[in-house]
Amino acid sequence: MRSKHQISTLFLIAFFLLILGCFASPRKNIRSRRPCKEMVFYFHDIIYNGKNFKNATSAIVGAPAWGNHTILANNNHFGNVVVFDDPITLDNNLHSPPVGRAQGLYIYDKKEIFTSWLAFSFVFNSTSHKGSINFAGADPLMNKTRDISVIGGTGDFFMTRGVATLMTDAFEGEVYFRLRVDIKFYECW
Amino acid sequence: MRSKHQISTLFLIAFFLLILGCFASPRKNIRSRRPCKEMVFYFHDIIYNGKNFKNATSAIVGAPAWGNHTILANNNHFGNVVVFDDPITLDNNLHSPPVGRAQGLYIYDKKEIFTSWLAFSFVFNSTSHKGSINFAGADPLMNKTRDISVIGGTGDFFMTRGVATLMTDAFEGEVYFRLRVDIKFYECW
Amino acid sequence: MRSKHQISTLFLIAFFLLILGCFASPRKNIRSRRPCKEMVFYFHDIIYNGKNFKNATSAIVGAPAWGNHTILANNNHFGNVVVFDDPITLDNNLHSPPVGRAQGLYIYDKKEIFTSWLAFSFVFNSTSHKGSINFAGADPLMNKTRDISVIGGTGDFFMTRGVATLMTDAFEGEVYFRLRVDIKFYECW
Repeated sequence: MRSKHQISTLFLIAFFLLILGCFASPRKNIRSRRPCKEMVFYFHDIIYNGKNFKNATSAIVGAPAWGNHTILANNNHFGNVVVFDDPITLDNNLHSPPVGRAQGLYIYDKKEIFTSWLAFSFVFNSTSHKGSINFAGADPLMNKTRDISVIGGTGDFFMTRGVATLMTDAFEGEVYFRLRVDIKFYECW
Repeated sequence: MRSKHQISTLFLIAFFLLILGCFASPRKNIRSRRPCKEMVFYFHDIIYNGKNFKNATSAIVGAPAWGNHTILANNNHFGNVVVFDDPITLDNNLHSPPVGRAQGLYIYDKKEIFTSWLAFSFVFNSTSHKGSINFAGADPLMNKTRDISVIGGTGDFFMTRGVATLMTDAFEGEVYFRLRVDIKFYECW
Repeated sequence: MRSKHQISTLFLIAFFLLILGCFASPRKNIRSRRPCKEMVFYFHDIIYNGKNFKNATSAIVGAPAWGNHTILANNNHFGNVVVFDDPITLDNNLHSPPVGRAQGLYIYDKKEIFTSWLAFSFVFNSTSHKGSINFAGADPLMNKTRDISVIGGTGDFFMTRGVATLMTDAFEGEVYFRLRVDIKFYECW
């Protein structure tokens, strides 16, 4: 009778291990709304205006019929396309050592109010991070916070997906702005 | 002996519950080709042509050397870049109340026939939907249906992925066209 | 007593089957870093320079204030936007029969060195492949290999995700270049 009892106990233990194995495995997190990784960065955009070539990190490269490539267009810059290579910093100081570059393009896409759309990458190549994070999404920049998608990643950010929350941290006229980016990854590999 | 029997029965029940838990969990759907959510929308594009500023929802912002920014270029518009902020409606009527905005860009990218490539977002901010859906993909617009990718989402569409089928529902000269978009999400969170 | 023993044995077998079912199922591969599919392609870009319209597969459609649409701009082409419809081949020969088209855009996005950013699709419509693969990512083209993201797919490549490694296989002046693309899918459906 004893050995039977022992077998039953064995089964019970095996059960709990199995349940743990089934539900505590990485698969558990697949549809979790708890981020598997979080990061905060700032990036700094200085638009070329015909006079600041040395400091400029971005340039107007597309414009509507009523615009040009040195001044953002009337009608809330509707139709302007800007290409950028902006320094990424860990704090909100433009002069902090950059930890990477934000590279890609944004467009202004509405006549009536300021709103933009972004497609870009964070590119890292330092001892702390190597690899890239790719983003795309609408940026209705009059809102305090705006969510865009993390659509992929490489290197340290291999195959990641998630959501990045953008906040305009500062802007000076139409030449400089600084974005805070709170990245939440929900798929990590 | 009885209690032993009862334990065995208990085990059996636990087994079936465990099996159910393992295989009927959300994870089961991860590689399913049955959509977890489906939606149909229309969006309406009115290209600025130098005379329709008030009604225009899009503008030519890039052109090849042989083009300009008020008329779509020769050679199947190859090289034209268009930025848009188009109303989204639930039916095929331009004058129906918009439920959101389609914002982003498309390009014409072939000399020999009409074909385009799109990157844009659906932006919703109403009582029925809040959030955004991000799309990218090739749009060989002479085909009756074309599939592009849902590459991410935010808000109500948090972390979604899927496939959207585009159909040209109507077009009038080179100023207006209407697309029907059948969205099928295969990853819902 | 015998039947009890048999039940126990039955349980043991069921256990192992269950464990197998739980861990050897397709879900196991979800976070695997072993590709579920691999492909290698080449694509060929011939930029329009004012004289090669017939052979050109791409055109400059955006430029900074100091540039134009027939010659890539000074300062490492910073600000140039190029739209392309490039033939895809299975080997490195421009004259091999194309198996599809690479369609989308790239931008040059840095003043100090050559670096670009890409968003495009591979479009297939042959007996061997039907469907599309969508890509986005930074392309620091002075590096021997660069990783970008596979952000989605349709048709034969339904819902795929992965990483594509780009290598500059050849370039001739500023008119022709050929990229080798090693695609590794980590999500297959």
